[in-house]
Amino acid sequence: MERLIGVDIGGTKTRVGAVWNGKILTRRDFPTRGLAEICAVIREVLHEVGWEKPDAIGIGAPALVDMHQGRILCAPNLPPYWNGMSVVDELKNVFACPAYLGNDANLAALGELVYGWQATDFLYVTWSTGIGAGIVAAGRVIWGVNGQAGEIGHLPLQPDGPQCNCGKYGCLEALAGGAALCARARERLGQALSAKELVERARQGEPGSLALIEEACTAMGQGLAIAAELLDPEMIIIGGGFTASWDFLGPKVMAVLARFSHAHPKVELAKLGDNVGVLGAAALPFHFPFR
Amino acid sequence: MERLIGVDIGGTKTRVGAVWNGKILTRRDFPTRGLAEICAVIREVLHEVGWEKPDAIGIGAPALVDMHQGRILCAPNLPPYWNGMSVVDELKNVFACPAYLGNDANLAALGELVYGWQATDFLYVTWSTGIGAGIVAAGRVIWGVNGQAGEIGHLPLQPDGPQCNCGKYGCLEALAGGAALCARARERLGQALSAKELVERARQGEPGSLALIEEACTAMGQGLAIAAELLDPEMIIIGGGFTASWDFLGPKVMAVLARFSHAHPKVELAKLGDNVGVLGAAALPFHFPFR
Repeated sequence: MERLIGVDIGGTKTRVGAVWNGKILTRRDFPTRGLAEICAVIREVLHEVGWEKPDAIGIGAPALVDMHQGRILCAPNLPPYWNGMSVVDELKNVFACPAYLGNDANLAALGELVYGWQATDFLYVTWSTGIGAGIVAAGRVIWGVNGQAGEIGHLPLQPDGPQCNCGKYGCLEALAGGAALCARARERLGQALSAKELVERARQGEPGSLALIEEACTAMGQGLAIAAELLDPEMIIIGGGFTASWDFLGPKVMAVLARFSHAHPKVELAKLGDNVGVLGAAALPFHFPFR
Repeated sequence: MERLIGVDIGGTKTRVGAVWNGKILTRRDFPTRGLAEICAVIREVLHEVGWEKPDAIGIGAPALVDMHQGRILCAPNLPPYWNGMSVVDELKNVFACPAYLGNDANLAALGELVYGWQATDFLYVTWSTGIGAGIVAAGRVIWGVNGQAGEIGHLPLQPDGPQCNCGKYGCLEALAGGAALCARARERLGQALSAKELVERARQGEPGSLALIEEACTAMGQGLAIAAELLDPEMIIIGGGFTASWDFLGPKVMAVLARFSHAHPKVELAKLGDNVGVLGAAALPFHFPFR
């Protein structure tokens, strides 16, 4: 297996890469829509690198997935079209090669394990529209019995808190995820702001925005402290859109982490940047836990 | 390595067993005091089963431990005497055999993995004076980078909550551990009750006691839901003193777990009962992660 396709479906953007020997030969980014378009882009990428067909395809989605069946179970941050889709069967039919589906944050952790920081015990957290994580312990990804481990975004931090788009209440994602923060800015500040605009206003000291961001950083720090208590990791790796403002957000998050965890894992940004999802997906065929 | 000694130091009771081929040949229980007494009991046990010396000793303590150095770092539920003790060096000196130290709940998880439920992905939680856990994923104990994984008792559930005897605030153990519950009963109800008496009063419907127990069960359910979101386990195994009242406490805990976790792991009581600590400790020489 050397000619690999990695697909990283994000809440807003999808990335498709041809990966050979741990290197991305070419990558295409485009807005997340349907699976037919992804297949078309895979064909373009194959054509560009001169492969007739791939040896295997790995695909990550911001979703609760059934890794055994290669199916998306629940993807509140994707168009409803994706819910319940048997992604692996579709890809196998089209490309006549093995295909493997995983959760995007688990695959990002796999990417950092194999090609990035290469630590043996770490937590990878993606902080973006939604919030997810992948856990690596003793050099192996912890997938869980259904491939659904690492759901840090759905830690119930505030049993009486706001409803999450997963249906539960007071999840970390409902307190600190990009989508939830935008919704709260609308409610509390009466303004339609992007997450990026909200962070900028907080940075400039606008009190309403700052309060929202402080609350989000407290929740994120609490979530990281919880994971550190359970997992005793060497490091926590942060990826996702909010890392662009890490100089401002990071100190707030890390102060809470230090206060509520006895362990003191170092905190670093993802080494693979926005290639992490594609590289992790391309590594999945070698590391798929359920055969 | 066939002639093994397993030592399970508890907050109130210590158990020492001679273990051969996964079976406890003899076991002694006595109040937890000092290490010299434990060594004396090990000698009695060796004499009883006719072993000149053990092939190895495994020892578990309700403490934050440094597994690399075989040292107790912090044990708020043991007499202060134990803090900082180099348990492994002491035992090696006395018995001239390899010795291994681990956290008691991690070793209980190891015991259930090797000799008990034998599931591949589970969380073992001990609910007693303190609260601890051991994590098993893909058939292996998750020890963490320092051997300090599984500290479910110190999940920061309520950042503004009561101080825990670990020094942090709002830990699960400060909300639901036996020692914390007794302290709260004293404060709120003005009575010196044991945890057992408190549970009995709650069962009989005494409002003050019932409120305390309901709060404890909510915190425990929240803690289990958090672990389930992060680990996607097949099952959660409960051990420790509070399991004696599981018919009353279990339904309350499980209702909260079901409400705050998307996963639905089954919840079962420890299969090895009060042998779990001794058997897990005796298995440590074979499964010690840091060589």
